[in-house]
Amino acid sequence: MASTDKPAAHPDKTEVESQPPNQSPCINLILIDLPLRALLFASTVVAIVLITTSNETEIAVVPLTPPKSGPRTAKFSHSPALIYFLVAVCVACLYSILSIVASFSFISKPAPPKTLLLVLAFFDALFVGIVSSALGAAAAVAYIGYKGNSHVGWIKICNVYDKFCRHIAGYLAMALLASIILVFLTLLSTYSLYRRSH
Amino acid sequence: MASTDKPAAHPDKTEVESQPPNQSPCINLILIDLPLRALLFASTVVAIVLITTSNETEIAVVPLTPPKSGPRTAKFSHSPALIYFLVAVCVACLYSILSIVASFSFISKPAPPKTLLLVLAFFDALFVGIVSSALGAAAAVAYIGYKGNSHVGWIKICNVYDKFCRHIAGYLAMALLASIILVFLTLLSTYSLYRRSH
Repeated sequence: MASTDKPAAHPDKTEVESQPPNQSPCINLILIDLPLRALLFASTVVAIVLITTSNETEIAVVPLTPPKSGPRTAKFSHSPALIYFLVAVCVACLYSILSIVASFSFISKPAPPKTLLLVLAFFDALFVGIVSSALGAAAAVAYIGYKGNSHVGWIKICNVYDKFCRHIAGYLAMALLASIILVFLTLLSTYSLYRRSH
Repeated sequence: MASTDKPAAHPDKTEVESQPPNQSPCINLILIDLPLRALLFASTVVAIVLITTSNETEIAVVPLTPPKSGPRTAKFSHSPALIYFLVAVCVACLYSILSIVASFSFISKPAPPKTLLLVLAFFDALFVGIVSSALGAAAAVAYIGYKGNSHVGWIKICNVYDKFCRHIAGYLAMALLASIILVFLTLLSTYSLYRRSH
């Protein structure tokens, strides 16, 4: 409120208008926003590639009753958590493309439209939730695969399917990066609105 | 921008000032914000109570080599994912208390301070990520406990530890509610800034 009174204190109103206070910071913010969205797109694409190329076939013994042995394939589609992860990352990838297009449209304008900033801030926050929940689910399954759980007899599988587990580690890292980027993008969109409210 | 031009079109400036355009919507938003934060606090407290009272001891057989039988206790502390869940929900509970105090401070003022709105929007988005990732991790472990995974020989345990699994279902529902509330709170804080930028 106090800051909005400042231009009124200037006697020459045209001088104030010739120095648009919002233009410079908004352009600077777009210069951060656009590369971040491109990085979000890249991280989701790498995660999708890693998850879809993670299948591995090994001679393994599964401790069923009676135990089963033979060549067995570890696939991400064997775990609902990893399927959810793939779906969430694909949707986030699609969103990153749409938001890059929206962010590009900012460049030609002196300041980003406020309604678009509001929509981006909301969807960024929504995708923080979607990508983080998928990351949590995949990480929990990966941890059981890596360490096992002796309390309930869930054996570790990463000593057999090492390539599969390396891929999981890779796309977990990508999803973590995507989540962090999305939190920063939410902050950036909100901060742009904050600057505009001065 | 268009809406800021409208008051200038009115000849009587005092008439416009007697109807502050931001005051009414801001008060309305606080009336939504405060109960939502109270609901966030309640949902996290219920989740903490459910998780800390979920221990259950049953006569169970664990398919180790050789199989072990006897009275065994299912505890949330046996799973790192559920420990992470508890920590995340405790931190979110603490944050909900702090944000309720901040939201209360809005009531006495004609409009919420913009910097506080920005800080709340950022932390709401951050907690969307934290609570959602904890929810995803706990849900993934709960799903394996409920259905098992025959591909890797992870047996289901919910047929033995039914009370334990009912508690998990309860606190997953509370965490889902908390995540949804946090997304709406992010939107609300951002929307308040959007209204102030008009």
